[in-house]
Amino acid sequence: MTDTLIKVDLNQPATENEQIHNRWHPDIPMACWVKPGDDFILETYDWTAGAIKNDDDASDVRDVDLTTVHYLSGPVGVEGAEPGDLLVVDLLDIGAKQDSLWGFNGFFSQQNGGGFLTDHFPHAQKSIWDFQGLFTSSRHIPGVRFAGQIHPGLIGCLPDHKMLATWNEREQGLIDTNPNRVPPLANPTFAATAHMGKLTGEARDRAAAQGARTVPPREHGGNCDIKDLSRGSKIFFPVYVDGAGLSVGDLHFSQGDGEITFCGAIEMAGWVHMKVELIKGGMAKYGIKNPIFKPSPIVPTYKDYLIFEGISVDESGKQHYLDVNIAYKQACLNAINYLTKFGYSPAQGYSLLGSAPVQGHISGVVDIPNACATLWLPTEIFEFDIHPNASGPTRFLDGSIDLPIAYDK
Amino acid sequence: MTDTLIKVDLNQPATENEQIHNRWHPDIPMACWVKPGDDFILETYDWTAGAIKNDDDASDVRDVDLTTVHYLSGPVGVEGAEPGDLLVVDLLDIGAKQDSLWGFNGFFSQQNGGGFLTDHFPHAQKSIWDFQGLFTSSRHIPGVRFAGQIHPGLIGCLPDHKMLATWNEREQGLIDTNPNRVPPLANPTFAATAHMGKLTGEARDRAAAQGARTVPPREHGGNCDIKDLSRGSKIFFPVYVDGAGLSVGDLHFSQGDGEITFCGAIEMAGWVHMKVELIKGGMAKYGIKNPIFKPSPIVPTYKDYLIFEGISVDESGKQHYLDVNIAYKQACLNAINYLTKFGYSPAQGYSLLGSAPVQGHISGVVDIPNACATLWLPTEIFEFDIHPNASGPTRFLDGSIDLPIAYDK
Amino acid sequence: MTDTLIKVDLNQPATENEQIHNRWHPDIPMACWVKPGDDFILETYDWTAGAIKNDDDASDVRDVDLTTVHYLSGPVGVEGAEPGDLLVVDLLDIGAKQDSLWGFNGFFSQQNGGGFLTDHFPHAQKSIWDFQGLFTSSRHIPGVRFAGQIHPGLIGCLPDHKMLATWNEREQGLIDTNPNRVPPLANPTFAATAHMGKLTGEARDRAAAQGARTVPPREHGGNCDIKDLSRGSKIFFPVYVDGAGLSVGDLHFSQGDGEITFCGAIEMAGWVHMKVELIKGGMAKYGIKNPIFKPSPIVPTYKDYLIFEGISVDESGKQHYLDVNIAYKQACLNAINYLTKFGYSPAQGYSLLGSAPVQGHISGVVDIPNACATLWLPTEIFEFDIHPNASGPTRFLDGSIDLPIAYDK
Amino acid sequence: MTDTLIKVDLNQPATENEQIHNRWHPDIPMACWVKPGDDFILETYDWTAGAIKNDDDASDVRDVDLTTVHYLSGPVGVEGAEPGDLLVVDLLDIGAKQDSLWGFNGFFSQQNGGGFLTDHFPHAQKSIWDFQGLFTSSRHIPGVRFAGQIHPGLIGCLPDHKMLATWNEREQGLIDTNPNRVPPLANPTFAATAHMGKLTGEARDRAAAQGARTVPPREHGGNCDIKDLSRGSKIFFPVYVDGAGLSVGDLHFSQGDGEITFCGAIEMAGWVHMKVELIKGGMAKYGIKNPIFKPSPIVPTYKDYLIFEGISVDESGKQHYLDVNIAYKQACLNAINYLTKFGYSPAQGYSLLGSAPVQGHISGVVDIPNACATLWLPTEIFEFDIHPNASGPTRFLDGSIDLPIAYDK
Repeated sequence: MTDTLIKVDLNQPATENEQIHNRWHPDIPMACWVKPGDDFILETYDWTAGAIKNDDDASDVRDVDLTTVHYLSGPVGVEGAEPGDLLVVDLLDIGAKQDSLWGFNGFFSQQNGGGFLTDHFPHAQKSIWDFQGLFTSSRHIPGVRFAGQIHPGLIGCLPDHKMLATWNEREQGLIDTNPNRVPPLANPTFAATAHMGKLTGEARDRAAAQGARTVPPREHGGNCDIKDLSRGSKIFFPVYVDGAGLSVGDLHFSQGDGEITFCGAIEMAGWVHMKVELIKGGMAKYGIKNPIFKPSPIVPTYKDYLIFEGISVDESGKQHYLDVNIAYKQACLNAINYLTKFGYSPAQGYSLLGSAPVQGHISGVVDIPNACATLWLPTEIFEFDIHPNASGPTRFLDGSIDLPIAYDK
Repeated sequence: MTDTLIKVDLNQPATENEQIHNRWHPDIPMACWVKPGDDFILETYDWTAGAIKNDDDASDVRDVDLTTVHYLSGPVGVEGAEPGDLLVVDLLDIGAKQDSLWGFNGFFSQQNGGGFLTDHFPHAQKSIWDFQGLFTSSRHIPGVRFAGQIHPGLIGCLPDHKMLATWNEREQGLIDTNPNRVPPLANPTFAATAHMGKLTGEARDRAAAQGARTVPPREHGGNCDIKDLSRGSKIFFPVYVDGAGLSVGDLHFSQGDGEITFCGAIEMAGWVHMKVELIKGGMAKYGIKNPIFKPSPIVPTYKDYLIFEGISVDESGKQHYLDVNIAYKQACLNAINYLTKFGYSPAQGYSLLGSAPVQGHISGVVDIPNACATLWLPTEIFEFDIHPNASGPTRFLDGSIDLPIAYDK
Repeated sequence: MTDTLIKVDLNQPATENEQIHNRWHPDIPMACWVKPGDDFILETYDWTAGAIKNDDDASDVRDVDLTTVHYLSGPVGVEGAEPGDLLVVDLLDIGAKQDSLWGFNGFFSQQNGGGFLTDHFPHAQKSIWDFQGLFTSSRHIPGVRFAGQIHPGLIGCLPDHKMLATWNEREQGLIDTNPNRVPPLANPTFAATAHMGKLTGEARDRAAAQGARTVPPREHGGNCDIKDLSRGSKIFFPVYVDGAGLSVGDLHFSQGDGEITFCGAIEMAGWVHMKVELIKGGMAKYGIKNPIFKPSPIVPTYKDYLIFEGISVDESGKQHYLDVNIAYKQACLNAINYLTKFGYSPAQGYSLLGSAPVQGHISGVVDIPNACATLWLPTEIFEFDIHPNASGPTRFLDGSIDLPIAYDK
Repeated sequence: MTDTLIKVDLNQPATENEQIHNRWHPDIPMACWVKPGDDFILETYDWTAGAIKNDDDASDVRDVDLTTVHYLSGPVGVEGAEPGDLLVVDLLDIGAKQDSLWGFNGFFSQQNGGGFLTDHFPHAQKSIWDFQGLFTSSRHIPGVRFAGQIHPGLIGCLPDHKMLATWNEREQGLIDTNPNRVPPLANPTFAATAHMGKLTGEARDRAAAQGARTVPPREHGGNCDIKDLSRGSKIFFPVYVDGAGLSVGDLHFSQGDGEITFCGAIEMAGWVHMKVELIKGGMAKYGIKNPIFKPSPIVPTYKDYLIFEGISVDESGKQHYLDVNIAYKQACLNAINYLTKFGYSPAQGYSLLGSAPVQGHISGVVDIPNACATLWLPTEIFEFDIHPNASGPTRFLDGSIDLPIAYDK
């Protein structure tokens, strides 16, 4: 039977678990060691380590302390791994913790994190999703049910000191261009809530002061939120430090491309069964800067889509230059508006785009001045027919159910 | 037998064909009329109407007059169509012209159009692709062969006067922010090379002066360059004028998401067999601003991908804020660099990303400050194995073949 | 432009075309020659060469002379091909003839050919299918429309004398066990209606007397009626004679696994664009007895199925021993019965199973005494919902339309 | 958390577990009860309840007592279910038992069960497969690794007395036609080893004497061995007795169509998470005789196949009449022969066809006298390239590893 090298107790604070950390720093000691060829299991907290509850009150989303995330399991040391290698990780399987068969999706308040459509959804809201085997549904969004494309939102190896310095420098540089922006342009280092694994005392304090926040994806992978890094996929990670130091967390039962709701995909606590191998000197051999990966052979095969287009002219009519973010935002707004014709609230539509297996494609990026992006909404996840027809849409929902909301205090 | 309502003679200048136009304007007379339920065929020029030749000299790409494009077939009037309707278009089939079984892909000179990676590929280059039934291959890029996902790069209905004014105004506004930029931020109206279909005399001149350029995608669809609008798909277009006025052109034998090479996907002359129907008042019924569509059931099913990640830190190391364009650019550069390890030139890699059935996904757009985009390279299009392995890549190509290049004069 | 090496004129009797034949015999002269690496086009008659008409009268199906089929285009000689080689054939594309955009499906009378369910459908019936680009629908079976998986029902190389003798001997042996059976167990040689291509005089008569009938699939491939040999696939054929002698015909716009209706799939006249190459000595190298092939990357991707099971207990309740034919027959009858609940006549259901992209899987062949077979009915081809639900089926059809029938005289 | 209604202890004999049975009989008491809408978990033994060991000795396969199988978990009573209803079962998830992460595939001795190719493989052999998350590989068959399409080989509801009598009568009738055949034509009732769940005493003896063996698939479903009844699929079962009485067992980690090796697919002990609902009177409403089902959205998407054809002429050259079994047998033998060219033993090839996600299609069943069947071998499960090419096959295996064999005593 495969060894579980890191265990988490959902009733214990993550900060008391020495095999958990919430910053990136090369000095964080390995939580455990494995050999190339080994397979093993790591348990994980949800990214907030329990801050969001399975209830109908969104005040926990509103009040979450974002300096504490993400709680990661690791780092796992791999014997023989050296800087310049590629660490090959097979995600053999991923699941929810058996004592926690649910997940959450939410939008942060614009005052505390925001999200992709925060101008339209400025207040904290959430939806709770129950898992039934391979499937999920939500008591807050009736009429949909789908198979999860389970994946870790966040996985990657420890940076070395030089890369860490680069990260902190370039991100602080961006913050400095508009330091009072709400929400902020980036998250600066923050020692107070840093959990540095086994590190204690001065070593901890020193590393905590420098530790990079876990929010953005970076050269090592990290918080990429790529729904296709799903169970069954194989990833090739750059190695920067001896032993590689692989950490993982932020598991998602399902997510739409973009993870536009920010307070997650369908966020859950769980476990990852993985296997590691090495390609010595692989970074140079293959010219690798960021991770590359191969998709799983067993992803959900939803095939029938309604596809929404968006261009880089914003809601106010302002013309932007080849801006895919604006274009994707318009495609999302178009889809949300469409869903309201069937009885969904805009918030339900927004939540659905963040949590269902929605695809976001970059469709045109050269046809000046408009980028074009497309949002692919799988029609098979709905329990009713959402196709257009000559007689117009049927309102399947009566509006009696909506997402809990928590207004700013 | 289905009627061919618009014919094109590739030996005749497009400007002499009254059923062709290269600007958007509500005054362009319908080239022909059909009824809801009709199916019919339209032939089309390639988007440049023959400016690019099937040879090994890229000077035609360098010297192309971009004010002349795109040459579109139409507009087709649909009886009974009124503003506010949805025009439902089934793309029943699409093909190359039998007397022109080839296509081109190219990069414009940075001085004359540029492209997504113009800073890395500032000179005009091109590759020629031969069609063999459902498949294509290029004498300029050995080692790849794939089935085309044939589609029109450009399709949509005529704008009304109000929408046309909006387009011209917002785009000119953008140009005015940096009017001397090379390449430009957008393309202004330009009467000299406007071809307004059947319009002549003063009416032609008036419309030509206002006619919107065909380059960007807009609310009506237009030049979306969505590879998934392929033969077999069904599209729902907003209608702005009586009769709808559907035009189509810029056919692609194949394209990668983003059409990053700009001088095209694999550009070809051809024909479109389509069927039209109406959803009366459909825009309001379904809340439609931009077109929506359903994908074809018969797209090529390449399933095995190598997936490259990119984040919004540019090549110089500069941090950008949640910028998907930058992120996708990095993913593209990562893929090109990877391909060079197998013997491809960077230009061959770039051309391949623009022409093969590559997918571009928006993967994370909220994890400040980095957006994450992924480029999906189908491994099955290669005649050799491009997967990473422990012994490193094999150089399958000796560098003796490359894309023709034409330096700026 | 690719050469069309064999042309057919649908207004000319097939027997007047020297590049057509309807028997297998090594003495049939090559109709034309190609080299390895060549691609070329062959036009074909429908398998009956025009005996079945696009009308609403099934008497042509009843009265067809089955000794005349199948009219094949070829044989194509491949330079350098020798016995023991593998002929590699790429089906680059296949289509209907532009002047004949329709096809037929039918059941023979039990007195003249019969079919898989002839005990249930003893009389000649037919349905006519119109082609609209990639799609087809029938005026005789409302409520369905689907993309064709176009393929040749019959393709293979000439046998040598020894193999021909084996075929004739073993089939005659079977006939001799019950020579008066109606329909017969197999088709004996029959010189009168044999069309031996360019052969004339005594040579023709000698070969006609020995020429194997084209009905069954055999070691060389032949009339396999495999819907997955579709355009885009690649086939490896055993070669028995110098020059290989590849012939093709019996094109199908679409077919269900089993081609259970016998008077075809959706039968059509058309053309095949193919490319040939050789693997010298490939039969021994790879141990090939029957052809092998690789499927196309562009088959229709219908994914949602209702799957019907059948076991090897026949309609009368009789127990058979591990008999997949009986099991598949039961699965077919179960599906037909199911379809009648939505308003289809049994004949419409039967015709649909023979012509739509239905899959037939061998599911269990060892669980004595019952074989189990499954019939996969794609739900997406229906214009209404055929899923079971708690309230029971809706009759979408009123029974006013049915297949033409022609009773035995 | 979902309730596990039936638990099995792999160290306890199945015959001591009152919630297990190995015959079909309406008098077997319900092991537990649920309500429509409930979801619940049932644990299961492997089909032999531990008779086959994880070792390198095939004598256990040779010596197995086939009168004892299959050990099923159930029957589960569903409140309100009545004869004539349809029981709708969602297979929400299925897995191996965590203390038993392996499975077996084998061929029975011809003297004790045999198999599809028992004339070619007359001796008992076996291969052991280890599970690593979603994937499996075997120490006895190097060079392959694939994702499991996990499914129950056997699932169905209790028959009523009348149906039971029909089963026993028709199967005994077949046995009587050749009662001494080895292997037998069917399995007669056999009281000695019958395990009738909670039944004891005279009631047990009476039922045991009549209880139908579990080997064949029948009208209720039962041992269909359909690999596509996989986790995530939805099945509609006929109900014959009050409470329905749903039983399940014979879990497979993976199986090829036909389960040709008979001593299984990849056989395992495990658990099934399912949900039940009712369609009242559904059998008549939808004309259901055998179960129907819908496939899962998350099956492994292996897309690249080598497809082998077989026709109904047997290995000795004998002509059979439209016999799909013979045709499929030839396709299997062709595939096995092909695999030997790469270094596999015939036994390894046979085992692979029984255990990997191989498809078996019924391709032509009307082209007298030859049926045609196809075997689809997914190429992506191999760690090396098994495609044909001009230079011939490479022997990747040196023959040092083979399947354990146990000769008849």
